[in-house]
Amino acid sequence: MRVLEQMREHNPLVHCMTNSVVTNFTANGLLAIGASPVMAYAQEEVADLAAVAGALLLNIGTLSAEQIESMIKAGKAANQAGVPVILDPVGAGATTFRTEMSLKILAEVKVDVLRGNGGEIASLIGVEGAVKGVDGSVSGDAGDVSRRAAKQFDCVAVVTGEVDVITDGTRMAKVANGHPWLTKVVGTGCLLGAVIGAFSALDRERILELTTEAVACYGVAAELAYRETAEKGIGSFQMAFLDQLSRLDDEKVSELRRVEHGRNEGTGHE
Amino acid sequence: MRVLEQMREHNPLVHCMTNSVVTNFTANGLLAIGASPVMAYAQEEVADLAAVAGALLLNIGTLSAEQIESMIKAGKAANQAGVPVILDPVGAGATTFRTEMSLKILAEVKVDVLRGNGGEIASLIGVEGAVKGVDGSVSGDAGDVSRRAAKQFDCVAVVTGEVDVITDGTRMAKVANGHPWLTKVVGTGCLLGAVIGAFSALDRERILELTTEAVACYGVAAELAYRETAEKGIGSFQMAFLDQLSRLDDEKVSELRRVEHGRNEGTGHE
Amino acid sequence: MRVLEQMREHNPLVHCMTNSVVTNFTANGLLAIGASPVMAYAQEEVADLAAVAGALLLNIGTLSAEQIESMIKAGKAANQAGVPVILDPVGAGATTFRTEMSLKILAEVKVDVLRGNGGEIASLIGVEGAVKGVDGSVSGDAGDVSRRAAKQFDCVAVVTGEVDVITDGTRMAKVANGHPWLTKVVGTGCLLGAVIGAFSALDRERILELTTEAVACYGVAAELAYRETAEKGIGSFQMAFLDQLSRLDDEKVSELRRVEHGRNEGTGHE
Repeated sequence: MRVLEQMREHNPLVHCMTNSVVTNFTANGLLAIGASPVMAYAQEEVADLAAVAGALLLNIGTLSAEQIESMIKAGKAANQAGVPVILDPVGAGATTFRTEMSLKILAEVKVDVLRGNGGEIASLIGVEGAVKGVDGSVSGDAGDVSRRAAKQFDCVAVVTGEVDVITDGTRMAKVANGHPWLTKVVGTGCLLGAVIGAFSALDRERILELTTEAVACYGVAAELAYRETAEKGIGSFQMAFLDQLSRLDDEKVSELRRVEHGRNEGTGHE
Repeated sequence: MRVLEQMREHNPLVHCMTNSVVTNFTANGLLAIGASPVMAYAQEEVADLAAVAGALLLNIGTLSAEQIESMIKAGKAANQAGVPVILDPVGAGATTFRTEMSLKILAEVKVDVLRGNGGEIASLIGVEGAVKGVDGSVSGDAGDVSRRAAKQFDCVAVVTGEVDVITDGTRMAKVANGHPWLTKVVGTGCLLGAVIGAFSALDRERILELTTEAVACYGVAAELAYRETAEKGIGSFQMAFLDQLSRLDDEKVSELRRVEHGRNEGTGHE
Repeated sequence: MRVLEQMREHNPLVHCMTNSVVTNFTANGLLAIGASPVMAYAQEEVADLAAVAGALLLNIGTLSAEQIESMIKAGKAANQAGVPVILDPVGAGATTFRTEMSLKILAEVKVDVLRGNGGEIASLIGVEGAVKGVDGSVSGDAGDVSRRAAKQFDCVAVVTGEVDVITDGTRMAKVANGHPWLTKVVGTGCLLGAVIGAFSALDRERILELTTEAVACYGVAAELAYRETAEKGIGSFQMAFLDQLSRLDDEKVSELRRVEHGRNEGTGHE
């Protein structure tokens, strides 16, 4: 699968409804990887855009009740048009409002990919997690949490962490690429959600595989960026990461990816 | 015209009502070129700020109905105070809402400079264009589209593309500076609108000339930035572009500018 | 006081309610220094987050009446929980709306640290100042203005400028670190407010000392960043500044800080 080549050829349009902190970084990251971003939030137009986009990203990082309404409107239009929907429930578990609004979206919109850290995803399936602010770490086993989320919401679940887990509830991939400095740049998780959208847009029938590919490419870019900037610091790393996304090709990814495929077996206690 | 020298001497204040994706890049770009940015959106204060600014930028990239009301309020205050108004109708043509809101602004506010890509400007004068997301390319001839827009809205029209066209409907300048990587960094079109505002603020009687100068300076900075970062990627290019804007001087621009002046002749079929 | 070491150990959570221009830079700056940012604005959740944060930042840079209500709600929750509140009255004096909204916050919330440039702080204590846009310079003596603000609002007042003045109305510190290029990057003043929040979170009983320390560290990072990028420009400076914040340690600060402690004596004319 020469997926990056396809990306640069098709430039899928990703409609991002994301938080105000990361909107610029998200747009630049999508451009770097070869996709086309469009940010739009108004009730009057979100359905129009979502329906013609290659993918729709819903990220609740700086949510308001009004924005959630817009997101649901966009999500329903995407569902109707067969456009993949990615949900990033930023900070779910950190406040009741975030947990409730995430669940509201999941109840009203068919989400294709749910991406979060362990604490966020755990809170959506009712597992208690210690989430500190918006960068909560996983409580419990990522494989277990992701499988249960995938089954409960009938979606691909992505739990990011030191090793990223991607599952549809049955099949599972683990991606060991990436670098801790990603946690030192705001919006790297959020941009990953958008990049998963761009990959999903390439083939709506192969979302699990393409999501795994997106996560691997992302991690490889981070590793290459770190090599360039280890002596400098996280400002330089941020820009080098965008540089690497823009220069990444299928050969480089193929050489450096560390992906393990398997089954996501339940414990039988669910 | 030692226009960059003037800019650094006068530091014109540019009141930007722009989209949430590019607001930081816009402010830093204005600071780099030597202007002073102020971003303000609240109905309670926009008229006060617009009236004392050197220029007002209206950019509808992440519009809401409420923001459009604020923009019109600011625009009217600018008109009354003789402050140049720049309109960037981001995504006009991509959704009906954007086209309608752009036309509403143009109906209620005297716009001095209208800046967009070919698809956006074409959609405002009722020419069908294939606009993909917010980065539509020109349909039809840029000279034709820009002339008709300039006449219809009684303004200077700037249609950006591989060659940028600036016209008041009669006189025309074509600027061949710039670099394709500008399309790989989000907000470069939006920042250009703000920079045109900063240049316009220097002399309200010479907006066509100063807009042309703004476009040429911008393109030269992009070329110089590309020379530095061709091997690196678009993250580095973005920062190098800000670097170049901050170091640009009239000599460098004079040496590198590729500007052609002419008449913008109609076909007689209008 | 090995304050940076403490920061990296405790990663205090700073709840930022800040303006849309600087939100990304603020989050990355906090991450760089070793703190954890969370941005949240919705009335439904701000009290929950403010109460568990290490500090709360209120920055009115792109205010709306509705956001001010949210800020007051968050501020009251912070007060009740003993969480330090930092107020940055961006553009106070530039419009009546900003002055009034700043005073409204100060009337309803106990602010622990008030940070602004001379013009902003002067306008809040009713001293006429010539404020141009949002980057007004001090009118009158910074020591005098800061002392009067500290006494009137019962807080630590920080007036930034060529030399930064920090006072509780009696004790005073002057910090001579920093670099003029800080004024060429948008949001450096706003980020300083957030960084003061992160430092304050380390020990709520020593806010004056920790605020002084924050200002000194910040200035040292700027000086080091300038050394690296003087030949390049302000795009590179911005990233090098984040780099330096992420690499800064107590030894480097101790070597380069230029802090003078004294009394803030009134003129007897107040």
